[in-house]
Amino acid sequence: MYARHCCCIQRCMAVDALNALSIVTYEIDKKRKTNYRNFTNYLEYFQKNDIAATCAMTDVKGDRSLRPSEQADPDLYLRVVEKTEDGIVVRGAKCHTTAAVPSNEIIVMPTRGSREQDEDYAVAFTVPVDVKGLKFVARSTVPQEKREIDAPFRSRWGVTEAVTIFDDVFVPWNRVLMCGEWEFAGQAAELFAVYHRHSYCGCKPGVSDVLMGIAALLAEYNNIEDASHIRGKLTDMACTAEEIYACGIAGSVRGKSMGPGTCAPDMTLVNVGKYVAGTHIYDEIGRVHDIAGGFAITCPSEKDYFNPELKPYLEKYLKGRADVPTEDRLRAFKLAEDLTAHGFAGWLMVASCHGGGSPEAQRITIYRGYDYEKRKNIAKCLAGIKTFDEFPEFEE
Amino acid sequence: MYARHCCCIQRCMAVDALNALSIVTYEIDKKRKTNYRNFTNYLEYFQKNDIAATCAMTDVKGDRSLRPSEQADPDLYLRVVEKTEDGIVVRGAKCHTTAAVPSNEIIVMPTRGSREQDEDYAVAFTVPVDVKGLKFVARSTVPQEKREIDAPFRSRWGVTEAVTIFDDVFVPWNRVLMCGEWEFAGQAAELFAVYHRHSYCGCKPGVSDVLMGIAALLAEYNNIEDASHIRGKLTDMACTAEEIYACGIAGSVRGKSMGPGTCAPDMTLVNVGKYVAGTHIYDEIGRVHDIAGGFAITCPSEKDYFNPELKPYLEKYLKGRADVPTEDRLRAFKLAEDLTAHGFAGWLMVASCHGGGSPEAQRITIYRGYDYEKRKNIAKCLAGIKTFDEFPEFEE
Amino acid sequence: MYARHCCCIQRCMAVDALNALSIVTYEIDKKRKTNYRNFTNYLEYFQKNDIAATCAMTDVKGDRSLRPSEQADPDLYLRVVEKTEDGIVVRGAKCHTTAAVPSNEIIVMPTRGSREQDEDYAVAFTVPVDVKGLKFVARSTVPQEKREIDAPFRSRWGVTEAVTIFDDVFVPWNRVLMCGEWEFAGQAAELFAVYHRHSYCGCKPGVSDVLMGIAALLAEYNNIEDASHIRGKLTDMACTAEEIYACGIAGSVRGKSMGPGTCAPDMTLVNVGKYVAGTHIYDEIGRVHDIAGGFAITCPSEKDYFNPELKPYLEKYLKGRADVPTEDRLRAFKLAEDLTAHGFAGWLMVASCHGGGSPEAQRITIYRGYDYEKRKNIAKCLAGIKTFDEFPEFEE
Amino acid sequence: MYARHCCCIQRCMAVDALNALSIVTYEIDKKRKTNYRNFTNYLEYFQKNDIAATCAMTDVKGDRSLRPSEQADPDLYLRVVEKTEDGIVVRGAKCHTTAAVPSNEIIVMPTRGSREQDEDYAVAFTVPVDVKGLKFVARSTVPQEKREIDAPFRSRWGVTEAVTIFDDVFVPWNRVLMCGEWEFAGQAAELFAVYHRHSYCGCKPGVSDVLMGIAALLAEYNNIEDASHIRGKLTDMACTAEEIYACGIAGSVRGKSMGPGTCAPDMTLVNVGKYVAGTHIYDEIGRVHDIAGGFAITCPSEKDYFNPELKPYLEKYLKGRADVPTEDRLRAFKLAEDLTAHGFAGWLMVASCHGGGSPEAQRITIYRGYDYEKRKNIAKCLAGIKTFDEFPEFEE
Repeated sequence: MYARHCCCIQRCMAVDALNALSIVTYEIDKKRKTNYRNFTNYLEYFQKNDIAATCAMTDVKGDRSLRPSEQADPDLYLRVVEKTEDGIVVRGAKCHTTAAVPSNEIIVMPTRGSREQDEDYAVAFTVPVDVKGLKFVARSTVPQEKREIDAPFRSRWGVTEAVTIFDDVFVPWNRVLMCGEWEFAGQAAELFAVYHRHSYCGCKPGVSDVLMGIAALLAEYNNIEDASHIRGKLTDMACTAEEIYACGIAGSVRGKSMGPGTCAPDMTLVNVGKYVAGTHIYDEIGRVHDIAGGFAITCPSEKDYFNPELKPYLEKYLKGRADVPTEDRLRAFKLAEDLTAHGFAGWLMVASCHGGGSPEAQRITIYRGYDYEKRKNIAKCLAGIKTFDEFPEFEE
Repeated sequence: MYARHCCCIQRCMAVDALNALSIVTYEIDKKRKTNYRNFTNYLEYFQKNDIAATCAMTDVKGDRSLRPSEQADPDLYLRVVEKTEDGIVVRGAKCHTTAAVPSNEIIVMPTRGSREQDEDYAVAFTVPVDVKGLKFVARSTVPQEKREIDAPFRSRWGVTEAVTIFDDVFVPWNRVLMCGEWEFAGQAAELFAVYHRHSYCGCKPGVSDVLMGIAALLAEYNNIEDASHIRGKLTDMACTAEEIYACGIAGSVRGKSMGPGTCAPDMTLVNVGKYVAGTHIYDEIGRVHDIAGGFAITCPSEKDYFNPELKPYLEKYLKGRADVPTEDRLRAFKLAEDLTAHGFAGWLMVASCHGGGSPEAQRITIYRGYDYEKRKNIAKCLAGIKTFDEFPEFEE
Repeated sequence: MYARHCCCIQRCMAVDALNALSIVTYEIDKKRKTNYRNFTNYLEYFQKNDIAATCAMTDVKGDRSLRPSEQADPDLYLRVVEKTEDGIVVRGAKCHTTAAVPSNEIIVMPTRGSREQDEDYAVAFTVPVDVKGLKFVARSTVPQEKREIDAPFRSRWGVTEAVTIFDDVFVPWNRVLMCGEWEFAGQAAELFAVYHRHSYCGCKPGVSDVLMGIAALLAEYNNIEDASHIRGKLTDMACTAEEIYACGIAGSVRGKSMGPGTCAPDMTLVNVGKYVAGTHIYDEIGRVHDIAGGFAITCPSEKDYFNPELKPYLEKYLKGRADVPTEDRLRAFKLAEDLTAHGFAGWLMVASCHGGGSPEAQRITIYRGYDYEKRKNIAKCLAGIKTFDEFPEFEE
Repeated sequence: MYARHCCCIQRCMAVDALNALSIVTYEIDKKRKTNYRNFTNYLEYFQKNDIAATCAMTDVKGDRSLRPSEQADPDLYLRVVEKTEDGIVVRGAKCHTTAAVPSNEIIVMPTRGSREQDEDYAVAFTVPVDVKGLKFVARSTVPQEKREIDAPFRSRWGVTEAVTIFDDVFVPWNRVLMCGEWEFAGQAAELFAVYHRHSYCGCKPGVSDVLMGIAALLAEYNNIEDASHIRGKLTDMACTAEEIYACGIAGSVRGKSMGPGTCAPDMTLVNVGKYVAGTHIYDEIGRVHDIAGGFAITCPSEKDYFNPELKPYLEKYLKGRADVPTEDRLRAFKLAEDLTAHGFAGWLMVASCHGGGSPEAQRITIYRGYDYEKRKNIAKCLAGIKTFDEFPEFEE
């Protein structure tokens, strides 16, 4: 539960990747007569051993205006450099691998669609984190010891992100899930995106819950809950959370069973949900600031608050409503600071914006998948250019 | 189907009112030991005879800062002026009664919650349109003969709206569904709103389909479909439609069965959906204008186009892409004009904004119904003011 | 004054065109050794005779993805078809020519930049409206007789727009202001746009004044002026008007004297102002609707109001606050309807959006003219990639 | 210059306070026959000695629903507790005092309008920072040693904010600028706000320059400068900066000379400018994130980059365009991180939002100062309720 930890264990990454791979390996087998029932074996192993995995997807990409095989350095997208009887050797680097370090395994997916000349880049597989040649250049975002009041929900580890380097890593065939089937790389990437954007529709409202909670609490502590502009801002926050959540539910309802029986959510709806999430996080944080006031960045530290010489002054002057202990008010401001005005807020904003793909990626997916032709036909009929009789789908 | 007629038969009004009344009459009977099984009798009659009805809800209200019984004129909210053995006599006026004139019957609902002193105003009933004392001051919004090209989807009747006057109308007891149970008036109004806002979540995306259709068609005819800002605007339109639609589906999924077995949609979700619909219609129309260009208001009339002296000039100079007949292009512009730059657009905008209640009404409903306390508790726990153990609902 | 007539005499078109031409003809003369002092002669004549002129600029354009000389029909941009000793013969059509019919003269400008192969399209000149071969296919937008209450500010002529056809019109050399100087066509078009967008920064706040006026008046008549969301919406409207106005003033302050001594406003600022105007008109109209309520489209007609049988009912039931006569309230709603929910609103919205160029045209101008390199250099210095010493412009 | 230091010396606080006090002391003297020419003496001293001062304005406020004298603790707004022949003794605390610690003096202003019973709270004066009884509980926001690449523009002191406690501080009469003139407290607070919001209109575009700079630089380094959505986002950022700047210039142009000859900027325009600044900072930061991509929070640290074992990998895999050194790209990401995804971004957002007063404070000021009556009169005339002849101000 997001609220309880103000963070999550990021297992969505693996589950979303496995869902996508279940479909893609099935489709590849059907067309290419391959035997990627490696996938079901892996799934069984994954479930039986309760594997904690992450998914490494985004390649480092180099010059973004060039395709994989056009780059000055051919390794800027991960690729197969050797095939042997026993397996494949891969080289390259994935970035933005959240939670790689504490995982047992890494599931590797292609980052984008390929053309035939990029077939070496159409590769998916799994590896344990301690495989030879696998290196993480990890960073820990804003780790901070939780103290008495300051940094209320922090851990001393923070959130780990990594550049994941495959320095000629060997992968045995039974862990290979795609190798050279370039025409399926796009589908793999898209399906992962669909599942992961659907996950956001469920998890982002949990973030909103926390942000609304601290905003509403500070409104109460400052005794401005009845101001209509405060109520309006809290309403805006609820609207954002519920729009995202609605897209998630509707995305499930309109989901469809795919080849192997895996259900895929509705592409348009989940993209809309993730898009709202990734673009509205800034407003949400702005509303918390607006309601909290300047203390979100000017509130004294607990070191000063607990200093016996200063405490009487701060007890007196940081007091809000008579019935709220000064310390509680201070705690609430420190939570607001940590959530919305600290490095954690930076992580939250960027992760909301780019996790599961950038807002532009969602917009492109929505545009490409949307049936504008059907809607043009409605307009043609209403304008007298065509008649509804020509379109059986408009039968009443 | 909205698209086919670019309008609708407005039967949602009656259905939404009946759903609301099914619950309220049941609750009244349970508490007040009344016998509003009049309702089920009416429903049977309604279904058996395929009654086309509308719902008259909004009172004329006079000075909006005053409650019903405080008005200078006590009739500014509809009220019971006499009770006899056979029935009741009602006086007052309802406004904004869409589609009253072509209906068989009118279902009358209270417009708002009441206090005890307003009990005469807590009244709901049904009447046939030809009952004695019932008067409609109707108007027909932008009726226009459909011509060859101009006014492509119009009818010579337009959309009818009415001020519905009850000049001491007698209603027999078997048609009375609420009479004096002031403590239920608020619930009746709210439930109607919930159902009607849910209806909007289904119907407004149909309006968006038409608007997207004409925008996309003009983009094609002007050969600007590939311009990225055009694609972006069409994407925005799709997002709006899908957000509303998602709230409708999610509102159904999260609906709950009420006392008599009628299912009511989730109040928050459908209010969010209607709110998005009512506030985004302006953007949607703006995007059509943006894509269409100035011809939406400067395009010559069909009278000029079909004038033999002018036609060669207009054929030549109104030509767009080589493969699109000038007349088709002209038809598309005329549809854009009629939909978005004519009196019909005015109706569409105001009806989207205020139908089912104003945006502010939705905001108030969302705010009041939202569980901010639960979210404050999350914040309290994260801030160390409380612990999660104190709240069983946060059990993992 | 916009407010007084709820319309304007559109003389900005000619003045903006003359300002632009004063600079361009001066620059052409300097480079090409031409003698476009025709311009100053014309200006003298224009001022002496108090000529009312409009500017015909936008060509019909045909397939928008093709340049003038690439079109299937070479006349889809206005062009010189013959040059004689006495003058030139032009053919083509301009569209969206507002107020052409009541003008004395038409000033013709090129619509866009040219390449060398398009030199026939680089032409500017003036003609009287009764010149041989000039035809207007005019339309009158929403003409309506002003009645007692309905259509309060209308005229029976409406706003005239025209497709202006040049069917081999002869223009004597002394009225020719550009002819074949293709490399100046872009500057002419841009300068007209700059002046005209500047004009919008002054005139659009006048439109906003009227819209704010009717919104505030209805708030008063409905006695909801003290509701905080109403105050908030009126505040939003003031912000929009003042942002546009501020861009106009700042655009003047930062203007620069050009070659012949004509002052040109700051390109970026006036484009920002027009952009805000053209994209916010939808919100402004939406706020009027929101404040007015449904009566903006459901209010009975004056025919019903003055009908002796109906008047007592409507006097009684359309009454708002006790101190406001019903007729005044009805008049206010009719003004709201006419301004924001009628064909006039369509004209207002599209004219705000596309007049002086589309929002996208402003965005492109802003992007192209903005000094991002300077700002990149700031970032480079702050990031330690360069040092401020390398950039004399950052000297403190 | 903001760009050069990515911060400022905050001298606007004192200058804005002195401007406001020049007017208020003049007005008080005129009405109350006091002798606040203490002000001009102080100004002379201030200029002669080049005093660096800050202004302490915002009281800690306690329960915000209560006025100063109604608080449980009378000291929650700063007040005069004693008057002697030599001066006054003040008690209370001001919060959010930016740059107090490095200042020479503090200028103290009342935080809001007073009623007669609050006259002890209507007090303004100046003190040196080392006066007896004055205490700062200061905090340093995100101090960080500038390193080779990380934390590129940081200082090891950060931004200082303080709670400024007046523990019975004695102020001699010649430093007292207001004492008990409760009817002028509101004007003092408002005037300071006007000047300070005007300052924001000049300084906030400097912040935008830096944010646009890093966004544009990363677009270049990622080779996505030509993507139309990137250009669109950079255009949005330019629009925001220029709108704010335009309000500043227009606020000056429309300024008026006040009683003592001090010029005060236009209240409405500068409030609109500050409002745009304070509410759009979130979008601006969002656009930087959007353009930068996930590396804004996942980019490895310089410690890893300079690690000889890791450097070859990071040089290879963090390479973008062939012509941009990896280190430059890394530096740019680190600047983006520091500016927009770190504690400094929190400070920037909250300071933009609340500095010079909250967005709601600006909205209230705009609404209260705006002449809606004049605009209602326009509407009345257009609706036929009044005639323009009744209003001389509408004379053409």
